[in-house]
Amino acid sequence: MARHSNRSTSFDVAALAGVSQSAVSRAFTPGSSIAEETRQKVYEAARKLNYVPNSIASSLTTKRTNIVALIIGNMANPFYSHVLHAFSQKLQEQGRQVLIFTVDPGAESDEAILHVLKYQVDGVILTAAQLSTRMTSMCHDRGIPIVLFNRYIPGSDASGVRCDNAAGGRLIAEAFLAAGAKNFAMITGDPKGSTSQDRVRGFVERLQEEGVRRSDITEVGGQSSYEGAFNAALGIFRDKDRSRPEALFAINDIMAMGAIDALRYRLGLRIPEDLMVAGFDDIPEGRRAPYQLTTVRQPINQMIDATLSILNLDDPSSGIEPGIDQPISGRLIWRNTIPVPAGHRWETGKEEAARADTGSSK
Amino acid sequence: MARHSNRSTSFDVAALAGVSQSAVSRAFTPGSSIAEETRQKVYEAARKLNYVPNSIASSLTTKRTNIVALIIGNMANPFYSHVLHAFSQKLQEQGRQVLIFTVDPGAESDEAILHVLKYQVDGVILTAAQLSTRMTSMCHDRGIPIVLFNRYIPGSDASGVRCDNAAGGRLIAEAFLAAGAKNFAMITGDPKGSTSQDRVRGFVERLQEEGVRRSDITEVGGQSSYEGAFNAALGIFRDKDRSRPEALFAINDIMAMGAIDALRYRLGLRIPEDLMVAGFDDIPEGRRAPYQLTTVRQPINQMIDATLSILNLDDPSSGIEPGIDQPISGRLIWRNTIPVPAGHRWETGKEEAARADTGSSK
Repeated sequence: MARHSNRSTSFDVAALAGVSQSAVSRAFTPGSSIAEETRQKVYEAARKLNYVPNSIASSLTTKRTNIVALIIGNMANPFYSHVLHAFSQKLQEQGRQVLIFTVDPGAESDEAILHVLKYQVDGVILTAAQLSTRMTSMCHDRGIPIVLFNRYIPGSDASGVRCDNAAGGRLIAEAFLAAGAKNFAMITGDPKGSTSQDRVRGFVERLQEEGVRRSDITEVGGQSSYEGAFNAALGIFRDKDRSRPEALFAINDIMAMGAIDALRYRLGLRIPEDLMVAGFDDIPEGRRAPYQLTTVRQPINQMIDATLSILNLDDPSSGIEPGIDQPISGRLIWRNTIPVPAGHRWETGKEEAARADTGSSK
Repeated sequence: MARHSNRSTSFDVAALAGVSQSAVSRAFTPGSSIAEETRQKVYEAARKLNYVPNSIASSLTTKRTNIVALIIGNMANPFYSHVLHAFSQKLQEQGRQVLIFTVDPGAESDEAILHVLKYQVDGVILTAAQLSTRMTSMCHDRGIPIVLFNRYIPGSDASGVRCDNAAGGRLIAEAFLAAGAKNFAMITGDPKGSTSQDRVRGFVERLQEEGVRRSDITEVGGQSSYEGAFNAALGIFRDKDRSRPEALFAINDIMAMGAIDALRYRLGLRIPEDLMVAGFDDIPEGRRAPYQLTTVRQPINQMIDATLSILNLDDPSSGIEPGIDQPISGRLIWRNTIPVPAGHRWETGKEEAARADTGSSK
């Protein structure tokens, strides 16, 4: 297997395709302005000549590799596989590719960052776990921009984008209260992560404003997973000592789905008649017929665009602005797991939720 | 933001940690033999000194980047996000990372390969779509090993690993026949992909052996997606001209789930009483309470190990053996979407399926 052979140049391709060398370059640069017909001519000539532009050769000049590291924790949560797919597609349109680093849910990201630094990446997106401020400084020292996705690190100047999770937690509390619930339970996620903490805080604060005591709200950990929440729900509703909650907030949709299946299929409860349930994220899986989950929709595309905008890959010399914490509002999506109180006007009507149900699960 | 600073060397780290330079090197090489205590000492010293080993510097000597490209099509099918996660974890344990290339479902992979070739990757795993033999030769010419995962290309010498999809299709037909079904329908996937073609072929051939005519088997495309199959199922069962099938084979689990939801929630059919359904893959989502899907389990870990073994990343000079087509048997997993015929002995009993249900959805 010959590692080196006589390779064609962009000059050969331009000659065969009957176009300029600059057109060849544009044809291989995603996002460049070029007529589709010209692009096809270039591709056809490139195929005939086995020509491929070499990013590595150009990265030696530009110091750019067009590789972005994505550190991801909980791939069993479909929210994060949708996030990964969306980042991968958007970066690919810009001529960049995603290098994946997985860390165990709940683990520290420091070791992952050490591994990331071994590769020459143009930037780092952190969607998982904890990160020490020392590690963010190591990235800064090496001129590698890092942006946190859907989390922040208290006391750090690392920039990030997130859903306004506390405000979202308040929206869920509001919906339960409007439907007349008096006793509440929560299934929480990663206890160290800002996402779970903020959703819980907003939810609890809104209930406290109505006189609900913190100690009267049942709280069980669900490990951010379907299985964890399935078991957590059984634990809550089998416990005879507890007064039975009328409303259950799972801090993400995949846990709400696990809880609903446990309550329906193991305990025979009807939802929402016997128990109201709400999630958070609005993953396409929660919109399906067996769930029809009332939830808060994270503005995922807006969050991804904001992340890439902070990452500022097109202008590496300017670096990224530190200390940005950009919360974006989520909105309540009304479906069938909380009964609509008579005469109540919802921010998002059933019609809109129904439209959102179709065709957007890619 | 300083791009260059005085960096510590492995010598500094070894001195501070009180270990040899070779121990520092081993500490940063996943899979190396080193005492956990020593590794922690090295990490602690490296943190204090802001030391990070540089893969890029060493790749200039070794010509290895420790990056493996994974070309993936249908990320809306959880099977492929599980595959991605598993490849990422296994490669990471070897000190390698996955660079993702997404292509639209059903699209040709040729353009993706052109983009892959711009990066200096140690190998390519193709889990998606069609690939021309010209493209496989371009990889070979550049000394980049490529392995097909769960597909093959007729007429090509590209090596690959796959589930024995035709034999799996026969197992499903067998199960339906044993349960007494006489009229059959199929929801198919990518019409150009070997995976869908083989599952259909095995299923149909087994039915033909029992005298079922090909023309009597209803066949509708489901685009390999939940939504596609949801609509396909409504199409089949709303059509008054067709004699109503008693058994529906969706050629993957995510389509079986879409079909089941449509039939239950839109048409009020009971499964399996009114209609038997089977899928293929055994994704964790199909094991959940609302589905309890009877399916064929793909031996995913075995397939991934076999793929990495063919890819042979540890011995790049030897290249990979061409023309390997390694089919691995799947097995029928019996759950609740086909009734068990009295006195029938199943290859896999309910007990084993129940054990498989727990704890393996990561």
